[in-house]
Amino acid sequence: MSSALTARARTLDAASETTDRRACFDLPPGVIYLDGNSLGALPVGVREAVLDVVDRQWGHDMIASWNTADWWGAPTRVGDRIGALIGSAAGQVVCTDSTSINLFKAIVGAASLRPGRRVVLTDPDSFPTDLYIAESACRTAGLTLELVSPSEAVDRIEQRAGEFLLAAYSSVDYRTGELWDLPRITRAAHGAGGLACWDLCHSAGVLDVGLDLHEVDLAVGCGYKYLNGGPGAPAFLHVATRHQDRFGQPLQGWNGHAFPFAMATDYVPAQGISRARVGTPPLISMLALEAALTAYDGLSLTDVRQRSVSLTGFFLECLDALVPGVEVATPREAARRGSQVSLRHPRAYAVVQALIGRGVIGDFREPDIVRLGFAPIYLTHADVLSAANHVAEVIGDREYERPEFGRRGLVT
Amino acid sequence: MSSALTARARTLDAASETTDRRACFDLPPGVIYLDGNSLGALPVGVREAVLDVVDRQWGHDMIASWNTADWWGAPTRVGDRIGALIGSAAGQVVCTDSTSINLFKAIVGAASLRPGRRVVLTDPDSFPTDLYIAESACRTAGLTLELVSPSEAVDRIEQRAGEFLLAAYSSVDYRTGELWDLPRITRAAHGAGGLACWDLCHSAGVLDVGLDLHEVDLAVGCGYKYLNGGPGAPAFLHVATRHQDRFGQPLQGWNGHAFPFAMATDYVPAQGISRARVGTPPLISMLALEAALTAYDGLSLTDVRQRSVSLTGFFLECLDALVPGVEVATPREAARRGSQVSLRHPRAYAVVQALIGRGVIGDFREPDIVRLGFAPIYLTHADVLSAANHVAEVIGDREYERPEFGRRGLVT
Repeated sequence: MSSALTARARTLDAASETTDRRACFDLPPGVIYLDGNSLGALPVGVREAVLDVVDRQWGHDMIASWNTADWWGAPTRVGDRIGALIGSAAGQVVCTDSTSINLFKAIVGAASLRPGRRVVLTDPDSFPTDLYIAESACRTAGLTLELVSPSEAVDRIEQRAGEFLLAAYSSVDYRTGELWDLPRITRAAHGAGGLACWDLCHSAGVLDVGLDLHEVDLAVGCGYKYLNGGPGAPAFLHVATRHQDRFGQPLQGWNGHAFPFAMATDYVPAQGISRARVGTPPLISMLALEAALTAYDGLSLTDVRQRSVSLTGFFLECLDALVPGVEVATPREAARRGSQVSLRHPRAYAVVQALIGRGVIGDFREPDIVRLGFAPIYLTHADVLSAANHVAEVIGDREYERPEFGRRGLVT
Repeated sequence: MSSALTARARTLDAASETTDRRACFDLPPGVIYLDGNSLGALPVGVREAVLDVVDRQWGHDMIASWNTADWWGAPTRVGDRIGALIGSAAGQVVCTDSTSINLFKAIVGAASLRPGRRVVLTDPDSFPTDLYIAESACRTAGLTLELVSPSEAVDRIEQRAGEFLLAAYSSVDYRTGELWDLPRITRAAHGAGGLACWDLCHSAGVLDVGLDLHEVDLAVGCGYKYLNGGPGAPAFLHVATRHQDRFGQPLQGWNGHAFPFAMATDYVPAQGISRARVGTPPLISMLALEAALTAYDGLSLTDVRQRSVSLTGFFLECLDALVPGVEVATPREAARRGSQVSLRHPRAYAVVQALIGRGVIGDFREPDIVRLGFAPIYLTHADVLSAANHVAEVIGDREYERPEFGRRGLVT
């Protein structure tokens, strides 16, 4: 192990102590967890919070908890907490459903905000559910979907002019970790009279997204990646205040009604972001997410982003020194990089398995991606150096060729 | 207290010992819980199951639990367990999303099963979310919604003949507890060449619904009422095997894809019921529901239904003796009664509050309903008699007139 890199890791860790929240997480011993972009680690307060929900709120107070524990207010209360992490002022984010379902609402809802416009742009390399939902939402709302890389989105927006409705993109590419230009694409969308919707699954909790700063119209994201809300934690939807009055969406369930307990026959959408609610939310999961978010208390996302850039930058520096020649799929420019570093390797699946065998947990993405996510608040530069050393040994020593690393599970 | 009724309660409890599962629940002391039709009580195994999900599956095994704990299979695994309670053979039920969202899929999906037919019937007195969703699903799919009481549904189906698509009804009226004729309406729907969709929110876990026996095409329901899955537990959707290949629904998320980890650009729906999945499910809530369902292990729903009828029948008998003149909104014929007894009272809200003050938990429904649900497996005839005595005292002594019972909380 290079003593220069060790010293540098120590220096970088000392310089970023204020954003080190490792103490807020229960990480298993002997593990370097680089999969917080798939399932965030367990924050220490969640266990107690969940037991309180089960034993006291549900078991003892039972139905009364809808009032006494304000279960009814959880989707907007948790939404506001998420909003604070993505630069969206209170009253614009609701925690509800899954990312897929929220994207469906957002795209169909966009049509209600700009009647007559029909062209929706999305990334052909987007996470698949975004493509599937975009396709069906467009079919549902009579819109036209065009697949255009984010790098060409601005040109296409200008070409489509008065027909252009919505640019629906992911802020960070789930495979390569490339960070797209949210401010520029959003400005172009507005310049053409249309809207922008951003999928923040790989941004929320690691980037200073700045939804209000950039006047983002719509956004969606999940609760179980960098927000650490637990497996399948409920997702979120942001609708900017200026659009809420006219935001219509077809999943008009009773939780989104203006007077849900009046049990009225006609649907009257609630004022504000609550109209994006649908049915009764899965409260144990949602309140686990609420507890998890306390790990971010007192942190500025600008500082978290700085720590993230430092970690991924240092990882690239370590790779250059320890694994020269490895193909990096993620942009080296910090400004174009999310909080992950992906490698391309012809035996990527086996490389990931060999790393897991060493306690370095990343994941494989088709066809040849070794995906390593850096959840900044519970990783240190020392972890990063250690992970790079393992990568060097797995790839340099061809450890990935050992037959036990070739078998595939269902979920990779 | 009538000693004859006390003796009768003792006799009835002795005769129904085999379906008494009170030991499977953590009920707070001093409470008679008649709100299991709104939020089921806490089953004893849930606490341990949830701690295992949080500590071991999430905290320790982390992302590996998608394989090792079969998180991926949870929606169909839990779906099959629910299926067993509603007479739906394995492979036809998936646990996913909310009842509202599943009803949206079912109605839009019905259109894909009977192209060209357009008339959907639903109950004007249905639970509001069913009305709101039916309206927007029909708008989405270009269908025509007609509001017709279940009591007139068969006539209307025959009138609409070749235009008739779907009868979408609740098996039990959420307010009055009236049990509608699922076999007859389903037969009439099929006779006209259409389909039937049943909302089982107030039936699953208390009625021998018999979905396969009656060849029910589609059904939805929630996990948090008589199934005791906890606040906002995920819901379920049944699609009969014969319809699954052609069942199309617009919420085409990646969890419903034939090869979700191929990350393919085009949506190819999974074979079987999995195509009704959408996004990543809220696993803490879903696995709490899975653990809760063990309270039904070894019980026949025919026996549970018999116990339910005995409890509600005995409650009516007690009311006749103790609160003569109280207006009962629920049919007295056992065959037309779900697992609840609703009373009408001009001061219904205050009556409910006064009962709650005595530890008898029911709920109020607009405009004048005192709704008392009888979750059969954790209630006894002794509880029922005790509840009736409290009703007699609250109504007979006009206890409901005390000012502290007049204030309303948000959620009633």
